[in-house]
Amino acid sequence: MTRPQRVQIREVGPRDGFQNEPEHIPTDDKVRLINALGRAGFTRIEVASFVRPDVIPQLADGVEVLSRIDVPDETKLMVLVPNSKGLDNALKVRDKFHEVAIFVSASETHNKKNVNRTVDETMADNDVMAKRIVVEGLDCAAVIATSFGCPFEGKVDLTRVLDLAERFAEAGATEIGFGDTTGMCNPAYASEFFAAALDRLPGVEVTAHFHNTRGQGLANAYAALEAGCASFESSFGELGGCPVPAGSTGNIATEDLVSMFHEMGVETGLDLPRVIEAAREAQTVLGRKLTSHSIVAGPIEWASSLR
Amino acid sequence: MTRPQRVQIREVGPRDGFQNEPEHIPTDDKVRLINALGRAGFTRIEVASFVRPDVIPQLADGVEVLSRIDVPDETKLMVLVPNSKGLDNALKVRDKFHEVAIFVSASETHNKKNVNRTVDETMADNDVMAKRIVVEGLDCAAVIATSFGCPFEGKVDLTRVLDLAERFAEAGATEIGFGDTTGMCNPAYASEFFAAALDRLPGVEVTAHFHNTRGQGLANAYAALEAGCASFESSFGELGGCPVPAGSTGNIATEDLVSMFHEMGVETGLDLPRVIEAAREAQTVLGRKLTSHSIVAGPIEWASSLR
Repeated sequence: MTRPQRVQIREVGPRDGFQNEPEHIPTDDKVRLINALGRAGFTRIEVASFVRPDVIPQLADGVEVLSRIDVPDETKLMVLVPNSKGLDNALKVRDKFHEVAIFVSASETHNKKNVNRTVDETMADNDVMAKRIVVEGLDCAAVIATSFGCPFEGKVDLTRVLDLAERFAEAGATEIGFGDTTGMCNPAYASEFFAAALDRLPGVEVTAHFHNTRGQGLANAYAALEAGCASFESSFGELGGCPVPAGSTGNIATEDLVSMFHEMGVETGLDLPRVIEAAREAQTVLGRKLTSHSIVAGPIEWASSLR
Repeated sequence: MTRPQRVQIREVGPRDGFQNEPEHIPTDDKVRLINALGRAGFTRIEVASFVRPDVIPQLADGVEVLSRIDVPDETKLMVLVPNSKGLDNALKVRDKFHEVAIFVSASETHNKKNVNRTVDETMADNDVMAKRIVVEGLDCAAVIATSFGCPFEGKVDLTRVLDLAERFAEAGATEIGFGDTTGMCNPAYASEFFAAALDRLPGVEVTAHFHNTRGQGLANAYAALEAGCASFESSFGELGGCPVPAGSTGNIATEDLVSMFHEMGVETGLDLPRVIEAAREAQTVLGRKLTSHSIVAGPIEWASSLR
């Protein structure tokens, strides 16, 4: 496999990151941070989710955020919907976004605990939702959580994950994201997994979503890249990602991922200093030190600044 | 290249880590931490350096540390010497260690700033030292700093680095360590570099020493492994490593490296929970939160503990 020379990176911090903050972030701050991400060149940002506000109050201002942000025309905004009810609500503001993410957990136990339905029940709803999303002229991106392992079940069978992916594709999803929900992937498995996924899903965009739970997130991303994966998700400032065990790191940091790709000569279309600037702004808004490495070290050019 | 199924990991925290601490660590604590590392199964630990105590007071108690530690017989202890004067001092306690590290920077500017000599001057002394170390029946490990880039000169020529490595090998070094002194390597270059180094240095142990400055340390280690490298250096708790820019991370964390290798099925001979225990003990001694990921998340088995 030849290494992709250009990758897509979706910034998920405004949804996946902000959702996991203990305190609600003021809408003004959310808007300012998303606008900063737009200026950094992201063409894909996950901005909101249409979930019950009593369950996830952190994202209750989703419609207001979508209405107020000001990002370049080429930036595709994504919203996450957990079920048909959520999709109904999302479609009330259908002109405010471009991509809809639907999801399931590959692990039966995780799916049950996450959305209180069986995988079959979730997939039946997902089939209907995918078709509606396509009819609306929106992009349908399906996400398979616990693709690389489950905290309740341990190993998750590769074939089971790819069967779910194929079913999503048949229902109309044009992108399948594989989520390492609790950081259980390793680079050897990432290499095997993405080679198999790309082989099994021709014509579908295959996206890698890794966590940095034990520090391997970028190693996994590199292994997936080498296997041909050209689409990634990450979170500025290393925000979010349902850390398991509690206190550990969740999502990989966008600025670290971008730095690695740029240093390797892989294009992302992003302005790294501006990504770091947005992460530092998030640090100020949240009032605590965020855990990404590049937020401190800066781009590699800064390391050569002693010249 | 087939992935090595077993790797060597040298723990460098007691020298490279402790040296970079702002406060002197009490000798009792050093001894206790090194003994904990011995119990974790390390067969290689860098313990002391014979440098001027007025320049690096943090390591002034090196001989006492070497005399008091109690590690398994199979653990090889390494000392670092900067010049022939340092070697003279080390050989006064010749029976207390097994390996001697000598070094140079591949970058002329970095070498000058680090040891105030030209690369040629340093290598002339290194030639003499390597021969003396071999005559003493000790293992000679040579370290080439700034192998992957220099904060003053930027890119460092691969051939120049390998020429220095070959000269070390001819002088008697049986191991050559390539140091990413300020964290400027990326996984694509690590892959290219270690393939070339292993090809150029048959019969010599080739060791990778990466930093985690922009979060890519484990990605570099994975890339080096895939290129055939089977020897690594790292620091428990992610201690040390002369961070550039100031405040950034230095060495990669041993517990994260070990976790990645074990999850991939690559053997290290180490007891990961005990490595983490030692890192947590270091955290207590130093009185601050250390930055490795596994120190919080624990081994992958803990992530599956919800089962």
